[in-house]
Amino acid sequence: MPAPIITLTTDYGTQDHLVGTLKGVILTINPEASIVDITHNVLPFDVLDGALSIGAAYRYFPPRTIHLVIVDPGVGSQRRPLLVCGEQQYFIAPDNGVLSMVYDREASLVVRHITAEHYFLTPVSNTFHGRDIFAPAAAWLSKAVQVESFGDPITDFVRFTMPRPEAAGQGRKGVILRIDSFGNLMTNFRYEDLPIAFWNGEKVKLAVGGKEITQVVQTFAQGAPGEPFAILGSSGFLEISVNKGHAARQLGAQRGGEVLVEL
Amino acid sequence: MPAPIITLTTDYGTQDHLVGTLKGVILTINPEASIVDITHNVLPFDVLDGALSIGAAYRYFPPRTIHLVIVDPGVGSQRRPLLVCGEQQYFIAPDNGVLSMVYDREASLVVRHITAEHYFLTPVSNTFHGRDIFAPAAAWLSKAVQVESFGDPITDFVRFTMPRPEAAGQGRKGVILRIDSFGNLMTNFRYEDLPIAFWNGEKVKLAVGGKEITQVVQTFAQGAPGEPFAILGSSGFLEISVNKGHAARQLGAQRGGEVLVEL
Amino acid sequence: MPAPIITLTTDYGTQDHLVGTLKGVILTINPEASIVDITHNVLPFDVLDGALSIGAAYRYFPPRTIHLVIVDPGVGSQRRPLLVCGEQQYFIAPDNGVLSMVYDREASLVVRHITAEHYFLTPVSNTFHGRDIFAPAAAWLSKAVQVESFGDPITDFVRFTMPRPEAAGQGRKGVILRIDSFGNLMTNFRYEDLPIAFWNGEKVKLAVGGKEITQVVQTFAQGAPGEPFAILGSSGFLEISVNKGHAARQLGAQRGGEVLVEL
Repeated sequence: MPAPIITLTTDYGTQDHLVGTLKGVILTINPEASIVDITHNVLPFDVLDGALSIGAAYRYFPPRTIHLVIVDPGVGSQRRPLLVCGEQQYFIAPDNGVLSMVYDREASLVVRHITAEHYFLTPVSNTFHGRDIFAPAAAWLSKAVQVESFGDPITDFVRFTMPRPEAAGQGRKGVILRIDSFGNLMTNFRYEDLPIAFWNGEKVKLAVGGKEITQVVQTFAQGAPGEPFAILGSSGFLEISVNKGHAARQLGAQRGGEVLVEL
Repeated sequence: MPAPIITLTTDYGTQDHLVGTLKGVILTINPEASIVDITHNVLPFDVLDGALSIGAAYRYFPPRTIHLVIVDPGVGSQRRPLLVCGEQQYFIAPDNGVLSMVYDREASLVVRHITAEHYFLTPVSNTFHGRDIFAPAAAWLSKAVQVESFGDPITDFVRFTMPRPEAAGQGRKGVILRIDSFGNLMTNFRYEDLPIAFWNGEKVKLAVGGKEITQVVQTFAQGAPGEPFAILGSSGFLEISVNKGHAARQLGAQRGGEVLVEL
Repeated sequence: MPAPIITLTTDYGTQDHLVGTLKGVILTINPEASIVDITHNVLPFDVLDGALSIGAAYRYFPPRTIHLVIVDPGVGSQRRPLLVCGEQQYFIAPDNGVLSMVYDREASLVVRHITAEHYFLTPVSNTFHGRDIFAPAAAWLSKAVQVESFGDPITDFVRFTMPRPEAAGQGRKGVILRIDSFGNLMTNFRYEDLPIAFWNGEKVKLAVGGKEITQVVQTFAQGAPGEPFAILGSSGFLEISVNKGHAARQLGAQRGGEVLVEL
């Protein structure tokens, strides 16, 4: 039996002891757990950014992986801790929508409200449920504790709809969902949101922050130096990039900014 | 037997190959070791910041964990490398006070000066004892080498006293010990340093950098938007925070800054 | 048998899900793999910086370690994916020179062009070969798949020569190869490039960015406060540092800047 895998996706950053503490809590309960960082640099308190991070990565992990997702501006309030059983994997997270992309993608889902306090560290603090509730729950689950024992299923969990491109004049209007560390702009246009002619590079006309982009390429290396272009990104969304450059800085683009496509 | 755990707390940052090199050295000596990062972003050369990081995290790890703590402005000088046996865990660090919070909290302690050079990489450099002395010592210890074989006990190890709040007029004066990645200000007031009435939110009057704070909350979510408040943090210290905001930026507060509490 | 080790050296940063995705792909193919981060903060698209990072760290890992090195501005183009067998370790990387320091240091080398597409994730994207080609190749290799099955040996792989110091007037002229996270300047002068008298601190005269340095020390702690000095760094190169300071900021020095030594 390979070691059970627990992944971590948080907005804790890596400046502090917080991530180390989570790992210690997990290893104290289950020394066999294999802990894998997805990212600790979700934008602080930003549930959408967290949803995009776990949504992009989780499907690449093996069956039975437990994903711990902690972006939790409501820590200490009445928002519920959840254990979600997807088709093949588990998710432990606060009930604030941070699993919305998982909900969108999984064909079957059981969402449970974790109420079994005997799995928590005591006393439970008001400010660090990652340590006191979420990490212990993940660690106990990784020891093959049955999901039923954590709490009952619920159906009124929080779920937001990812913003979708809308009609706008002759074309469609979308938004910049996030900017990655290379400066690429990930938009909310999926492959199926745009016609084949667009992806083939015919009649391309995009505007980002008032600046026009007229080129679609298949690989970054095809981009002319300093010239922004559109490309189908590896997560299946339209991205705006510059070959060896930083598109966000060059275009003065920000997360949430408008992306117009003329069709 | 679960794999022996070695944690890393350093000021090496993650830009360079340094942390990777430490891990390679450990795994070459003991391929069974399970290596866990606490943080590599201790403020450079800052022994107090390192002491707070390891002090906050270590107790969450299982018995027999080996904590490697490397904040070492005196690398290459005569400062001694130490192996510390606490109640249940081990610590390997330079003798410069970086383990002061561990010394404060552990009921029993044996501190040894590591002199057994046959455990070191050779030649020992003058600038990277993490690689040449500390990581090898941790790796050999994790192979169940007896602590006695590393060197003799000493009692004159370096230890600094954590700054404590002092009387000041009608109240008490403390300091900001550190600012976390959310911008929360961690002060040196412990729960027991302030009266119950304060924690209950009666008669609260604090000043940080000339700005007044009059609210104590139990959870971040109780804070009014944009309004700084006091809260008992998860490490047991008074913290100043803003709900979904960045208290340090908002208050213009810096590490070492004064925190006045009127009583 | 200890778990097979796969190290990661990339320019992906840690803001995004990219590194987590790589790890998921590896663990799905080989759940026994032990994954070790060297760094994910290679300067974006910077093949020289990547070459220095892996070059400095790899020799500290045990035999049979697989090093995955992904700095890949040509992703999606015709540049080849490589599997390199060194004396004792393996390297998987794009064929763009990022392994040049490995090529310099290994006494024996076989470089193979990875063509065995049945090891790749399908469909192979044009923008994320780390996920689709490099990580799967490393994971299959870690399951003891024979190197021959990945593709045939080649000899025309891309290899750049590390810049070497040149004669300049009465002395020698070198460059700043990189600046580490403490602000130390790593130059391209090796120990053997400078006379013993220099290292002994006799007749030392260096200039960096127009500023003169006249001191060579053996340990950081010997440096006078605020005074830049030269020191033999732990990777065997001449470095310029300031005791508990940040040499790059103090000297206004940048990567690629000139370093003049008078002899």
